[in-house]
Amino acid sequence: MHFKIEKKLKDSLGRAGVLTTAHGAIETPAFVPVGTKATVKSLLPEEVKNLGAQVVLANTYHLYLQPGDELVAEAGGLHKFMNWNGPIITDSGGFQVFSLGAAYGKDFSKIIRGTEPTVQIPECSSAEDGVPRLATIGNDGVSFRSHIDGSLHYITPEKSMEIQHNLGADIIFAFDEATSPHENYAYQDEALSRTHAWAKRSLEYHHSKPNKNTQALFGIVQGGLEKDLRKKSAEYISTLPFDGFGIGGSYTKEHMELTTRLVNEILPEGKPRHLLGIGEPEDLFMGVENGVDLFDCVAPTRNARNGSLYTKNGKINITNTKYREDFSPIEEGCGCYTCKNYTVAYVSHLFHGKEMLAATLASIHNLYFIINLVKKMRQSILEDNFFEFKKEFLKEYLK
Amino acid sequence: MHFKIEKKLKDSLGRAGVLTTAHGAIETPAFVPVGTKATVKSLLPEEVKNLGAQVVLANTYHLYLQPGDELVAEAGGLHKFMNWNGPIITDSGGFQVFSLGAAYGKDFSKIIRGTEPTVQIPECSSAEDGVPRLATIGNDGVSFRSHIDGSLHYITPEKSMEIQHNLGADIIFAFDEATSPHENYAYQDEALSRTHAWAKRSLEYHHSKPNKNTQALFGIVQGGLEKDLRKKSAEYISTLPFDGFGIGGSYTKEHMELTTRLVNEILPEGKPRHLLGIGEPEDLFMGVENGVDLFDCVAPTRNARNGSLYTKNGKINITNTKYREDFSPIEEGCGCYTCKNYTVAYVSHLFHGKEMLAATLASIHNLYFIINLVKKMRQSILEDNFFEFKKEFLKEYLK
Repeated sequence: MHFKIEKKLKDSLGRAGVLTTAHGAIETPAFVPVGTKATVKSLLPEEVKNLGAQVVLANTYHLYLQPGDELVAEAGGLHKFMNWNGPIITDSGGFQVFSLGAAYGKDFSKIIRGTEPTVQIPECSSAEDGVPRLATIGNDGVSFRSHIDGSLHYITPEKSMEIQHNLGADIIFAFDEATSPHENYAYQDEALSRTHAWAKRSLEYHHSKPNKNTQALFGIVQGGLEKDLRKKSAEYISTLPFDGFGIGGSYTKEHMELTTRLVNEILPEGKPRHLLGIGEPEDLFMGVENGVDLFDCVAPTRNARNGSLYTKNGKINITNTKYREDFSPIEEGCGCYTCKNYTVAYVSHLFHGKEMLAATLASIHNLYFIINLVKKMRQSILEDNFFEFKKEFLKEYLK
Repeated sequence: MHFKIEKKLKDSLGRAGVLTTAHGAIETPAFVPVGTKATVKSLLPEEVKNLGAQVVLANTYHLYLQPGDELVAEAGGLHKFMNWNGPIITDSGGFQVFSLGAAYGKDFSKIIRGTEPTVQIPECSSAEDGVPRLATIGNDGVSFRSHIDGSLHYITPEKSMEIQHNLGADIIFAFDEATSPHENYAYQDEALSRTHAWAKRSLEYHHSKPNKNTQALFGIVQGGLEKDLRKKSAEYISTLPFDGFGIGGSYTKEHMELTTRLVNEILPEGKPRHLLGIGEPEDLFMGVENGVDLFDCVAPTRNARNGSLYTKNGKINITNTKYREDFSPIEEGCGCYTCKNYTVAYVSHLFHGKEMLAATLASIHNLYFIINLVKKMRQSILEDNFFEFKKEFLKEYLK
């Protein structure tokens, strides 16, 4: 893997670059659509490519459970299995182990919109209160029950690496502990020590295998909402010979900007950075401005399936009655396949009729919108007008 | 519309031809995929075209209720609304008025597989027993309640024409009464008189409008399981100046062949014939051999969504455990997009993961299989080896 910075944004951490992987180049900053179970929901790989995606991200946790990473290896790896010949990223499995395993059904989203924690997520390492745990964390690894069939599994850093080697993505992630932002400082510190130890073990395992030549390994910075833990994490992870870095965990909107800046000021400039699980337009601007190169998020496709569609004037809900007789495209001037070929009235009809094509057309539009938005940010860096573009876009979008 | 017979099958009614419509030519015999609500479920129109479809059929009843035929007209007609620029057929709405309106939830499929009626469908014209009726039939037309919201509607032959004019398909059908095969002779006879009167009224209305120049009108032969009523119907409908003919109603497998032959021996040879709602491989061979030019059926796409996939050795159910580790295509040598790019293991994984792409890939395969099968029948007529092809195919398929 090779990363080249083409241009830096004046007075900020932002930059435009090119990340070259074993399956092709990614112009950064870039938005990465999520194909959790080796499919971007409701879309053929050709459609994903045609709407402008350069790379997709699949989830290690889901593919490990079904169909199994060994089966994917037997099929010739993820690229061949899912018929996507461009770059692929797999995550560490850490986030899903905790959100689907430890805290399934609990309030454990990436961003806390309010300031008060509403749900106390119990510490997974103790079961004193008698509440059944789906996951148990030890210093060696995590045991958890599958959210599909309740079967018991044990994942260590080495196991996460082995799974990701079997899947065969171009960029893979070190195993980490994703903590709830509701945990206290002492727990965040303890979890961070584990994440750091696991980072080193992930690296050692990876470097002992031939996969190190074809798969790039990214380390993950954690530390929750604690500034000093985030600093400590960025400093430690920076010292390890990773090919790039991920920034993980949950945030409030406010903390996300502070954290991203703080972390990226420490991480080595010459290596790519991935802000994990973030993808709303205002957060993408924040990330790009603060030196993020890659983003992934299920929001564009999940929103699409719920009928929530991005436009430059904010999101609209296409199931609203007023759209039934709207013969314009979702967004005037939008270059996506959906807007070029269908009216709002047709897409609305598909949603009301519960037709599967509704999800397809809406996902094409939303992914095009988000991917293209990040492409425009890249262009604006190259053309020295990022801040004007940001101001102009957000003025309309957040109005 | 223009229909040219290119070659006739020796010692049978079969023929290969070309049907030219306002939106392009259809090489016949041809299988027509069903896009009930102006979408072939889970497929983009480009995919439908790429898998070999020359024409699609949309359902008048469904589109009348949602989004409404007037809205479709305002959108510029069905072709523009659904982004399909090839030929489109709409049915009369008759079958759905009865199957979804009159007999909703009842045993009212096209083909009765057993010989004994299992459910008595009450005569819709009487409500003496106090059972609430969704439809009431009079000589002028049918009033029925929507299966979506229970709203009351009244459809006459003229109304069916008006709706189909608004939709704007290339081939439209005269309004008819579809009867349950469980009705007695007296009722079938009475219903047939209505169908004949409605055929004439449909024609008169259609010929009074400019649409007669762009939309071809087909009359429908009914008569249930009664040979003499089928004969009577074919003879009467033949005398009317329709552009082509449909054969409607339900059958046992055995009756279907007798009926098709009987009817097509009477219908004028020079005009196209559509066997409505039939599409299993063995029935397609039967139909082609007996002079049918067009077929439509939801079976390929409905089967696909249930994981039931066509192969030359019969249907397989891909959700069966044994397919989880099968790295061959669904059918070796199949030229469809799915078979060329994915393994059975991947499609199986999508089904087990309840991914929408499962329906898409399975529908592409099944429609390709059925459409291509009819194309091969056409080719075998042109090459004088239809009966050899039929024998060879069915030997493997029904084994």
